[in-house]
Amino acid sequence: MLLSKIGEFGLINRIKKAIKLDSSVIKGTGDDCAVLKYSRDKYQLFTCDMLVEGVDFRRGENPYFIGRKALAVSISDIAACAGLPSHCVVALGLPERATVEFVARLLKGMLDLAKKYKINLVGGDLSRADKVLIDVSMLGLVEKKNLVLRGGAKSGDIIFVSGELGGSIFGKHLRFTPRLKEARFLTGNFKVNAMIDISDGLAQDLWHILDESSVGAIIYEDLLPLSEKARNLDDALYRGEDFELLFTMPRTEAKKLLVRKMDIFKPVGEITHKKCGLKLIDRKGKEKALPARGFRHF
Amino acid sequence: MLLSKIGEFGLINRIKKAIKLDSSVIKGTGDDCAVLKYSRDKYQLFTCDMLVEGVDFRRGENPYFIGRKALAVSISDIAACAGLPSHCVVALGLPERATVEFVARLLKGMLDLAKKYKINLVGGDLSRADKVLIDVSMLGLVEKKNLVLRGGAKSGDIIFVSGELGGSIFGKHLRFTPRLKEARFLTGNFKVNAMIDISDGLAQDLWHILDESSVGAIIYEDLLPLSEKARNLDDALYRGEDFELLFTMPRTEAKKLLVRKMDIFKPVGEITHKKCGLKLIDRKGKEKALPARGFRHF
Repeated sequence: MLLSKIGEFGLINRIKKAIKLDSSVIKGTGDDCAVLKYSRDKYQLFTCDMLVEGVDFRRGENPYFIGRKALAVSISDIAACAGLPSHCVVALGLPERATVEFVARLLKGMLDLAKKYKINLVGGDLSRADKVLIDVSMLGLVEKKNLVLRGGAKSGDIIFVSGELGGSIFGKHLRFTPRLKEARFLTGNFKVNAMIDISDGLAQDLWHILDESSVGAIIYEDLLPLSEKARNLDDALYRGEDFELLFTMPRTEAKKLLVRKMDIFKPVGEITHKKCGLKLIDRKGKEKALPARGFRHF
Repeated sequence: MLLSKIGEFGLINRIKKAIKLDSSVIKGTGDDCAVLKYSRDKYQLFTCDMLVEGVDFRRGENPYFIGRKALAVSISDIAACAGLPSHCVVALGLPERATVEFVARLLKGMLDLAKKYKINLVGGDLSRADKVLIDVSMLGLVEKKNLVLRGGAKSGDIIFVSGELGGSIFGKHLRFTPRLKEARFLTGNFKVNAMIDISDGLAQDLWHILDESSVGAIIYEDLLPLSEKARNLDDALYRGEDFELLFTMPRTEAKKLLVRKMDIFKPVGEITHKKCGLKLIDRKGKEKALPARGFRHF
């Protein structure tokens, strides 16, 4: 049976079922990061992201920004759990045609971002490959009281996104700034019930929160902050690579946040009961069910 | 300039020079694992290894053993630092032709080994790719007093290897048992000055110890435990994938180990001064300098 038959998430669900974990693991597969016991007041976060030439970036792209992105996507995962990144290792697959200059630029893109976020690049692995491959595994720490996962959304919560959505694949995906500062601000000052980074499109990533939290949601087309690069609503709902935060908080907390008038955080809808599924209210007030569709590898 | 001009290790040296680390890092790039501060009496180990179809395994190979190997090589790195593995994440690149059955077998190979060594598989990433790619990143813990790195060999030390060398590429590399138990036995009962796992051939990996320790070495052809699968001496010296331990200990400790008559640990030579380089004494008593040659990706 081909993978496309059960799809990427069908495969992930099968894998999750086969895995047994011990008590050192607070949260395993199925969130932005794994969460591990660490110290009295902190958890350790552990995540990995692989970039493949031709899928996540094009051949001929500026290698500085390929390297930068490879690190940024993992930082975005740590941010989505409200943590701070600390250490990473990098596995690099390189074709024989790769030049020393290419690798040097790639590395510079990584190290500049690592420096900015105080991340130690502590090891790696080099391999020959037909195409350029970069897999970054990253560790981070989060105060126990600050940890936010996908599974905490509650009916009545207000749903927010950071920044603007859609059109990232036309350039921003190689230069985006992970929302680390914003996630730390949010969890340091407010009660955030659930959070994820939008990597596969708003609809699909919101579905991850709904599934993990056993809730439903309504979002409003009017409220969606479309990027000027987005060609249409579908670019925001179903296309990947935005790397913005998607989070939910109780109504009272949402009011406190809205009072701060921080343009970056925009309310887009609210959490409802599970049986509602995910609904979009369009500009004419018409209701439309949104499928869990978005970027998928299989 | 093509990578082949400066080679795999030339590239690694350039990368090492460009990296800055903070005080949370005991040892960064350049050993079997990165070593990080963790608790009062333990360090955390962090390593990654990428397997690529056509380089580390052939297409058509039993996927159970591909998955098994992907985990085993990282366990071998943790063993070389005398630690115990604890958690891992797996990035998987899969071609569209891959079947659900293939992935299920691959995963079973991983999970069976993970269970055996009490390793939690806590996360991963899936991507489309032209060939099968598996990158495993692994965490482990080691008691501070047990940590062994490549850089501690001293002139006069006896050099040992575990098991037999050579010919692993004819099958063993897919089924080897990482020398975790052996490494823990050694460091729990003896003073081990330096250790590495032999992944790229005895000569090249011994050179890593010599470089990091600023010493030289003499090894004796007569003493090298050639596997029956090895076609000749070069298979043991310069071919990869043995995943045996290579370690050095002071003469007094070596005597204590030899008294135990454990067939698995065989003395193969001794550490000398740096200016001697690496020498092989052949069966006729003739001396021959061994270059730092072995398996290389570039």
